[in-house]
Amino acid sequence: MGIRGFGSDNFSGVLPEVFKALEESAYGHAHSYGEDSYTEKAVADFKEIFGEDIDVYFVYNGTGANILSLSAFTNSYNAIICAETAHINVDECGAIEKQTGSKLLTVPTFDGKLNVGLIQNHMHHFGDQHHVQPKVISLTQCTELGTVYSRDELKEICDFAHAHDMYVHMDGARVANAIAHLGCSPASITKEVGIDVMSFGGTKNGMMFGEAVIFFNTRISKEVKYIRKQLMQLHSKTRFIAAQFSAVLKNDLWLKAAAHSNAMAKNLANAAEQIPSVTLTQKVEANEVFAIIPRDKIQKLQDECFFYVWDEDAAEVRWVCSFDTTENDIVEFANLLRQELC
Amino acid sequence: MGIRGFGSDNFSGVLPEVFKALEESAYGHAHSYGEDSYTEKAVADFKEIFGEDIDVYFVYNGTGANILSLSAFTNSYNAIICAETAHINVDECGAIEKQTGSKLLTVPTFDGKLNVGLIQNHMHHFGDQHHVQPKVISLTQCTELGTVYSRDELKEICDFAHAHDMYVHMDGARVANAIAHLGCSPASITKEVGIDVMSFGGTKNGMMFGEAVIFFNTRISKEVKYIRKQLMQLHSKTRFIAAQFSAVLKNDLWLKAAAHSNAMAKNLANAAEQIPSVTLTQKVEANEVFAIIPRDKIQKLQDECFFYVWDEDAAEVRWVCSFDTTENDIVEFANLLRQELC
Amino acid sequence: MGIRGFGSDNFSGVLPEVFKALEESAYGHAHSYGEDSYTEKAVADFKEIFGEDIDVYFVYNGTGANILSLSAFTNSYNAIICAETAHINVDECGAIEKQTGSKLLTVPTFDGKLNVGLIQNHMHHFGDQHHVQPKVISLTQCTELGTVYSRDELKEICDFAHAHDMYVHMDGARVANAIAHLGCSPASITKEVGIDVMSFGGTKNGMMFGEAVIFFNTRISKEVKYIRKQLMQLHSKTRFIAAQFSAVLKNDLWLKAAAHSNAMAKNLANAAEQIPSVTLTQKVEANEVFAIIPRDKIQKLQDECFFYVWDEDAAEVRWVCSFDTTENDIVEFANLLRQELC
Amino acid sequence: MGIRGFGSDNFSGVLPEVFKALEESAYGHAHSYGEDSYTEKAVADFKEIFGEDIDVYFVYNGTGANILSLSAFTNSYNAIICAETAHINVDECGAIEKQTGSKLLTVPTFDGKLNVGLIQNHMHHFGDQHHVQPKVISLTQCTELGTVYSRDELKEICDFAHAHDMYVHMDGARVANAIAHLGCSPASITKEVGIDVMSFGGTKNGMMFGEAVIFFNTRISKEVKYIRKQLMQLHSKTRFIAAQFSAVLKNDLWLKAAAHSNAMAKNLANAAEQIPSVTLTQKVEANEVFAIIPRDKIQKLQDECFFYVWDEDAAEVRWVCSFDTTENDIVEFANLLRQELC
Repeated sequence: MGIRGFGSDNFSGVLPEVFKALEESAYGHAHSYGEDSYTEKAVADFKEIFGEDIDVYFVYNGTGANILSLSAFTNSYNAIICAETAHINVDECGAIEKQTGSKLLTVPTFDGKLNVGLIQNHMHHFGDQHHVQPKVISLTQCTELGTVYSRDELKEICDFAHAHDMYVHMDGARVANAIAHLGCSPASITKEVGIDVMSFGGTKNGMMFGEAVIFFNTRISKEVKYIRKQLMQLHSKTRFIAAQFSAVLKNDLWLKAAAHSNAMAKNLANAAEQIPSVTLTQKVEANEVFAIIPRDKIQKLQDECFFYVWDEDAAEVRWVCSFDTTENDIVEFANLLRQELC
Repeated sequence: MGIRGFGSDNFSGVLPEVFKALEESAYGHAHSYGEDSYTEKAVADFKEIFGEDIDVYFVYNGTGANILSLSAFTNSYNAIICAETAHINVDECGAIEKQTGSKLLTVPTFDGKLNVGLIQNHMHHFGDQHHVQPKVISLTQCTELGTVYSRDELKEICDFAHAHDMYVHMDGARVANAIAHLGCSPASITKEVGIDVMSFGGTKNGMMFGEAVIFFNTRISKEVKYIRKQLMQLHSKTRFIAAQFSAVLKNDLWLKAAAHSNAMAKNLANAAEQIPSVTLTQKVEANEVFAIIPRDKIQKLQDECFFYVWDEDAAEVRWVCSFDTTENDIVEFANLLRQELC
Repeated sequence: MGIRGFGSDNFSGVLPEVFKALEESAYGHAHSYGEDSYTEKAVADFKEIFGEDIDVYFVYNGTGANILSLSAFTNSYNAIICAETAHINVDECGAIEKQTGSKLLTVPTFDGKLNVGLIQNHMHHFGDQHHVQPKVISLTQCTELGTVYSRDELKEICDFAHAHDMYVHMDGARVANAIAHLGCSPASITKEVGIDVMSFGGTKNGMMFGEAVIFFNTRISKEVKYIRKQLMQLHSKTRFIAAQFSAVLKNDLWLKAAAHSNAMAKNLANAAEQIPSVTLTQKVEANEVFAIIPRDKIQKLQDECFFYVWDEDAAEVRWVCSFDTTENDIVEFANLLRQELC
Repeated sequence: MGIRGFGSDNFSGVLPEVFKALEESAYGHAHSYGEDSYTEKAVADFKEIFGEDIDVYFVYNGTGANILSLSAFTNSYNAIICAETAHINVDECGAIEKQTGSKLLTVPTFDGKLNVGLIQNHMHHFGDQHHVQPKVISLTQCTELGTVYSRDELKEICDFAHAHDMYVHMDGARVANAIAHLGCSPASITKEVGIDVMSFGGTKNGMMFGEAVIFFNTRISKEVKYIRKQLMQLHSKTRFIAAQFSAVLKNDLWLKAAAHSNAMAKNLANAAEQIPSVTLTQKVEANEVFAIIPRDKIQKLQDECFFYVWDEDAAEVRWVCSFDTTENDIVEFANLLRQELC
């Protein structure tokens, strides 16, 4: 076995093109805090993709991107509706509550996807001073379960939100994988359907560090820079985030990288579902495979090739492919699975 | 004139050794969130310098390092005593108040340095429920005015703090410059004098991003990881901060880089004070020079070679040298000063 | 029909004895902020009931009492486990999240009562930096559904909590009703079973304003006064809260008042369950009756005698009795119910 | 000596008319949380004084009133400019920072009064992401030093604030004393000069508990009720605050009570300044007298008749008169002063 496992797409390093961009920007002086030409260039690159009427803020990480997005649209007496499985609900150590003061109203879902019916369960008590006031719907594209919202599904949620004077946040830590899967234009499932703000992932798709927050709704943009600073997400040497983004946006590298990891996940899923003792539990639409496997073999497999158990009780595991996962990695892991599980 | 100005040490890029370390760690898979061998190595490197009984936490930036440090020792009803000029007071957009809830009690100083006499002004109302309870003294080494605390000055403050059941935080964004100036061992002016926690700067001294928080007082260390996560300062690919730190700590590179920028500042100060219309306003002990210059020449000089005005009213400017400032940069800038100001 | 409905026990006014106490303390000067003889007396009165080794803090209202209790035992990265129906979860407009920063981990219950099995669902990820760390179990006695925990049920939860280095908070806005129902000593279901802190209700049981927070676990008591001040819960004229408490604690008035409202609720329940179209949905153990009634009659009944609909979808209503509910009120309302629903 | 000292106006009890109003509202049922006829009446009473276009919110105490006022107009990255002596700066245990997240920018003053010149010192760095953004000027009327802003002084500050897109908050814990001193209409020094929001004091002027927040700028009024709830300042039995306000507003009782305490302070000042060893340090315009007296006599005087030392170093004391201070109290205390100090 090689050293590459299926633990997470943040186990991988950086894309060669990203590294080259860092090298080219590594030396010499540039203005700090975003007033440099690299930042100007990267913002322009985003505008080429999403249109001129957006605001782009670079931040350090996904937690920061999500909280900056949500802070911009909430007061502490508001609530954020999200899936029970949402990263902001289960993996941020309560950072959203600490930073925004807002309550998360969660809905159980089978596949990680919200829909209007599920959201409706929290659409009450508007105007009641005793109750938090729902203000943002936060969805993850692709979801934490590797599933992908269609354009129509997104539009329905956005229309619903706006009809109720609410906003929609897209946690796009892996939005590249979703776009690669849908084969659509980036704007078509974000700005054009009415998403107000998106956390645009960099780190999980071959960058060293850095994410972007893209405001499609720019009504509050003047204030966001202060929020970012207070959230400790302003990098003095911003050029190093910006240069990476320009590298991944160039020639659709970000989408090609995501398409590759998606393809690897599909390969792995295809191999795994041939094994009788393996049951895939979610559609494989992006770069993640979820499967129930014989409980007593999990430890042995992990020792050979690392991955996480997703649901201890169900013996459900998660295999994540990355931009640098190779066909050979899949072949070897599939062999290992067959050897241990058949 | 070359492109390197004297705006800030975060206008510079990265040390070649830092870049090499990033290159060596750029590819292949590693566990995320600090459970990787690079992180293990960097922590060991810090322990070699400061001893085994410390806790080290890597974070993204100086704001994060300071707030993680302060959060660990404060409740919202506590107060933090600092100089009026402290970065935490004037340059963080109120992030300390937002994140810790604590009040900053500031003292005016001439040279940016606290002392027990100044601190005494806020040492009252202990036990009074109407008043914030002072709990941390935060000092900056070297200060925002380029001055350096001596070992004795630090020890006096630490002894005073501990005698009053308080803690001492050192904002060490530029601690390398202070140590290089003092020519002492790193532990001798931190751990050994009783500093409880230090923000150890990386970015201003040749790193691409990343700072370390070093707890010399490890009594609360178990909880710090949760605070870091909530403060959005946990990097998934921690190896990329750790690898840089190992590079700068190796063979005292961090101290050599700081000694160089200190020397360049000294050169510049020497040249500047020969000019009759220039008045240096602070001792030049680290990598910063503060000077009052003819007001009507500031803009012209800035156009040629960027730097910041420190005090608009006084026509006081700040010139910061960096690890990559060259002797030639100083010569050329000194020429420019003479040409414009004589 | 008289003017007294069944909307809530905070629709009622004050007990005559409470009013007399206010009259006796209304004039003349007394030290403010709790340093007066009335406060001393009221604390002594509580110590007579619960023992000397407690700390008592007077606050304005139940929201304040609950948040002071929870703040004392949590950091923002902690979590508070409670029933989905808990007042702190649904009726405080997110104040707990805003004030403590902590996440509420809720469990669905049928009768508003937590138990170890339900709590277990959130007992995971201890030590994991990505996850909130459960620290407090908050239970309501009597519950928001009018049910009462037995001594054994409470002890099991407290033992479980302490075995996991956690604390137990009792929201006792209506604890008097629970004690009156159980016929036990106040200490026996609080201090003696291991409750760490209790919000002791005053307002819902005949006081004009004011609640008490009683710490049975006094390890952090020194700091609580600062938290109370920051939470805006320190009354300058504390004597007026204290005098009321002394009045209700005297001769078990608080328990007699609660026993009366419990008895009225029992009467109402007995009458209501005779009506075929009425279905009681919870055991009537305290002063609240929950019932499903014909949906089309709700408005008419409310117009005659106010009460709240508890669950719109289920046509479930809530009738709350108060210290001043009379037997005649019950008779007349029962007549109304029979007239409209039979 | 009688029992009434000069410690604070919150050492006094309640006005007889206030008590009568409590008695009249003490029994019977009323809707909770402000949906009752007493609240409706009290709001109408305020509108009669200040005009229809205001929003009134009842809260428990001054800390709550100030924080509700400030929360309505600030984000955490904003700053609040106030006098160094402001109650919100020195007497709230940091509650403002904890609750609003905002930084207080203080200015030293001799007499507790802000003016445009002093405020100017903090009017910089607008638009700079590293700096807090000043948004509210908070002034106290009458000040903590017993001095009173004139109409013109207030108007100048308000005009200045609005010209800079900022708001003005008046901490009116003792606004009655200021109005009584000025002999003007209440609206003329609040709404008419451009105050955006006022904390209107009740407790210090003869009420048992309760303050009002009056928004003259009603642009954000819809959201304030949620903030109040989150700030734990919503009283379930709101009628008991409202009834007291109706009582004090009736027939200008609040102004008469304030005029009386002002007159008593004037009497005391007149007597005190006859004593050679006493130096008055502030103009006596409201109900407070500040004086430097022989240090060695302070304890003896306090033992006879309680008051607070204001400035330990200067041997400056504060004597506060209350609505129930009698002429005889003044005569006896003046005798005591003469006896001890002459």
